[in-house]
Amino acid sequence: MASKIPVLEIFGPTIQGEGMVIGQKTMFVRTAGCDYSCRWCDSAFTWDGSAKDEIKQMTAEEIWERLLELGGDRFSHVTISGGNPALIKALDELILLLKDNGIRVALETQGSRWQDWFYHIDDLTISPKPPSSGMTTNFAVLDEIIEKLMKSGCIDHVSLKVVVFDDGDFEYAKMVHQRYPYISFYLQVGNDEVTECDNATLRTKLLDKLEWLIEKTVETKEMNDARVLPQLHALVWGNKRGV
Amino acid sequence: MASKIPVLEIFGPTIQGEGMVIGQKTMFVRTAGCDYSCRWCDSAFTWDGSAKDEIKQMTAEEIWERLLELGGDRFSHVTISGGNPALIKALDELILLLKDNGIRVALETQGSRWQDWFYHIDDLTISPKPPSSGMTTNFAVLDEIIEKLMKSGCIDHVSLKVVVFDDGDFEYAKMVHQRYPYISFYLQVGNDEVTECDNATLRTKLLDKLEWLIEKTVETKEMNDARVLPQLHALVWGNKRGV
Ligand code: SF4
Ligand code: SF4
Repeated sequence: MASKIPVLEIFGPTIQGEGMVIGQKTMFVRTAGCDYSCRWCDSAFTWDGSAKDEIKQMTAEEIWERLLELGGDRFSHVTISGGNPALIKALDELILLLKDNGIRVALETQGSRWQDWFYHIDDLTISPKPPSSGMTTNFAVLDEIIEKLMKSGCIDHVSLKVVVFDDGDFEYAKMVHQRYPYISFYLQVGNDEVTECDNATLRTKLLDKLEWLIEKTVETKEMNDARVLPQLHALVWGNKRGV
Repeated sequence: MASKIPVLEIFGPTIQGEGMVIGQKTMFVRTAGCDYSCRWCDSAFTWDGSAKDEIKQMTAEEIWERLLELGGDRFSHVTISGGNPALIKALDELILLLKDNGIRVALETQGSRWQDWFYHIDDLTISPKPPSSGMTTNFAVLDEIIEKLMKSGCIDHVSLKVVVFDDGDFEYAKMVHQRYPYISFYLQVGNDEVTECDNATLRTKLLDKLEWLIEKTVETKEMNDARVLPQLHALVWGNKRGV
């Protein structure tokens, strides 16, 4: 029997708002469940029980059918996000099915768990969480993940991304970048206004924070190779879900 | 005697606000002179005579010294922009000098002229101009440029970018993407508010246009592989020069 994957939402086509393929036209599959509980999580509904009635246990085939229903022939890229999709072994079936259909697959995880299907992801973002999240990075696990990816030679498909809310997070980001200097490195402006409903106010706050993060990066020689990015979807659509 | 390069501004470190290395920490060298005169050019001062007293004829060595003076050890990436830097043969000296010093080099041109030093650029953006610019693309020249780059095997370092202001531009973008399907393709929101001084107004207009461009891209199956991006510098700093 085909394995089931816990899915919270499937939507698109839209664009990827952040990270290594920012701007890419894509569909989204959001899985349920996370082993973290970051203080500022912008998708807490995936793990805090508030959306538990919306979780559907779906096979890879069912997810693919739903993607086709929504996207028709208007997509060639799918992003799997969470929660932490790396908790779900059964994603290998979905990833292979997508690749068999000529779809490029992106995925984001915080780097707390390994899955063999990481090797098949076209755009893999590993996003360890900084101190402001309240979480503690297990660097033994992260080292092992990065090492496996390095050895497999698929490092061009991998990036590290650290969300930065404050000076402490920036220091953490510097340390992560220096620990894995060969991996493309992205700094992302943190959005701690996840309940702000006024889009104009949110935009101003986010762009002010982007300016602050750019200034810090510019001053810091250890960040010469870094890329600094906002979340485009938050700038365009605010805190709305499913866009 | 070392050749001279007409330079209009050198500034940074800052971040690259657009295109294939959006967000990258970089220094900028802006050359003077353009063979086009786009209706909405956001750097018309490089060719319309209004800043002609600011043009300095500099050797590669002098430019490098100025970069070091401004950036110290806080950069590893330099972006050469214009005007159209592809008019300037002598840039080869600068590009080699930068590479000798371990600097990655990005450059943007509209694709109206070939230079052999294109082969040495790490991030080469070719940005043919859509109908709203008032310019006409010489596709014979563009074909030749793309073909040379394809043959040299450095196509991973190359992207096409089309700025879109209206539906006609979008059709043009589609045609360009289909003509060169193997080159990474970026759609960029046009800024026709280059005289808007109120940043809040400018931001709202630019983000509304971004939303419009995303919607068009989402609807269009020929754009499945495209990436849609704003100009981050315009969102953060408005129409200010030298940031
Ligand atoms: S790892 Fe991601 S999904 Fe999980 S709690 Fe943190 S921010 Fe939320
Ligand atoms: S090609 Fe670029 S610099 Fe030249 S006129 Fe057009 S927009 Fe301006």
